Amino acid sequence: MNKCVVLLSGGLDSATTAAIAKSQGYELYAITFSYGQRHDVEIKSAKKIAKYLGVKEHKIIKIDLRTFGGSSLTDNIEVPKDRDPYKNKEIPSTYVPARNTIFLSYALSYAEVIDAKAIFIGVNAVDYSGYPDCRPEYIKAFNEVARLGTKKGVEGKPIKIETPIINMTKKEIIKKGIELGLDYSKTHSCYDPIEGKACGRCDSCIIRKKAFEELGIKDPTKYYTRSKNN
Amino acid sequence: MNKCVVLLSGGLDSATTAAIAKSQGYELYAITFSYGQRHDVEIKSAKKIAKYLGVKEHKIIKIDLRTFGGSSLTDNIEVPKDRDPYKNKEIPSTYVPARNTIFLSYALSYAEVIDAKAIFIGVNAVDYSGYPDCRPEYIKAFNEVARLGTKKGVEGKPIKIETPIINMTKKEIIKKGIELGLDYSKTHSCYDPIEGKACGRCDSCIIRKKAFEELGIKDPTKYYTRSKNN
Repeated sequence: MNKCVVLLSGGLDSATTAAIAKSQGYELYAITFSYGQRHDVEIKSAKKIAKYLGVKEHKIIKIDLRTFGGSSLTDNIEVPKDRDPYKNKEIPSTYVPARNTIFLSYALSYAEVIDAKAIFIGVNAVDYSGYPDCRPEYIKAFNEVARLGTKKGVEGKPIKIETPIINMTKKEIIKKGIELGLDYSKTHSCYDPIEGKACGRCDSCIIRKKAFEELGIKDPTKYYTRSKNN
Repeated sequence: MNKCVVLLSGGLDSATTAAIAKSQGYELYAITFSYGQRHDVEIKSAKKIAKYLGVKEHKIIKIDLRTFGGSSLTDNIEVPKDRDPYKNKEIPSTYVPARNTIFLSYALSYAEVIDAKAIFIGVNAVDYSGYPDCRPEYIKAFNEVARLGTKKGVEGKPIKIETPIINMTKKEIIKKGIELGLDYSKTHSCYDPIEGKACGRCDSCIIRKKAFEELGIKDPTKYYTRSKNN
């Protein structure tokens, strides 16, 4: 059975990506980062999904990106709310500098040590916030790093970065996950949860909600609603 | 004054690289990794060099590569001794899977947050142990990752990976450092120090000793010598 490392954030995209890797016959080795993000609730979701998919091993890696800051996910910067991620093409403050490069480099180390054939990452360049490190050209460049910067690459057996949902719409991703039996109640997408519930107003919530609505499927996420006293 | 991030391991190569970056007029922001290596004495050397070169800021990043293992620097694997690194072309067990990719990805994040123009890394592909992630083709691939995976790259101002000593012999590196006034007594090269002293028998010690000998300069490193009772 071929092994793969799968980056599991706890979100909808990475959960679907993991389910796809499993459906392709891989034995899953999951890796999740606790990177000083505001939404540690993600880690809990990642653990639930890992268990649900029967991963062989789940590494939770603590990395302190707050030491650099520079993002609303790692610094005291407001998460943008109620903006239109489809019209607004500027890279938002939720962009974490070099985040996917850091994540993929750890995954590469892990993959080489356990002799995995591939790394699965749930980047998406369709229904997304314009992050540079989610685009196909970036993944292509990282594949070259994986080929040239490892012993396995030198031996002619490079570890491949697999991005099965990169060109799918959010609707297509959810449809695929449901086909594969994924339970989206275990996933968490919000950048800025309030009392453990999704805010419903950040880019990530807006993109998710829209896709479930268009599919006519109930989104199992619990969204925060203001009480009369707020 | 242009800023640069410099990867400072505490070794001879990275110290010389930092001195070169300084001589080119950069303001230095150093980054050192405490990665569960056996030789924490390196961190102390890195701090001394950072102070000596007057770096603006020095980040010590703790990353646990022991969680993956797979190297004699991060696992219970013997550091090879008394081998000839010039004749033996096999990648030795001191290779840490994807180490430079992890290091460079953190440096990239740091560089983007502080708006640095470049990252200096002391990789060398001449007097070295054949590590894949020290070669020019690898660095070229990582430059593409830096260009395509960051906001700065998208804005047409990519952070450049600078490798001033990549094609120099160890002798040339030491000569250059001495020209720049570097004090090599502050550096530490050994992979497997004994009682705080260099072992004198690992690849790194062998390459260093040979270069100092050929230059006819005394190596200020303190090498371990067996007492009668050992």
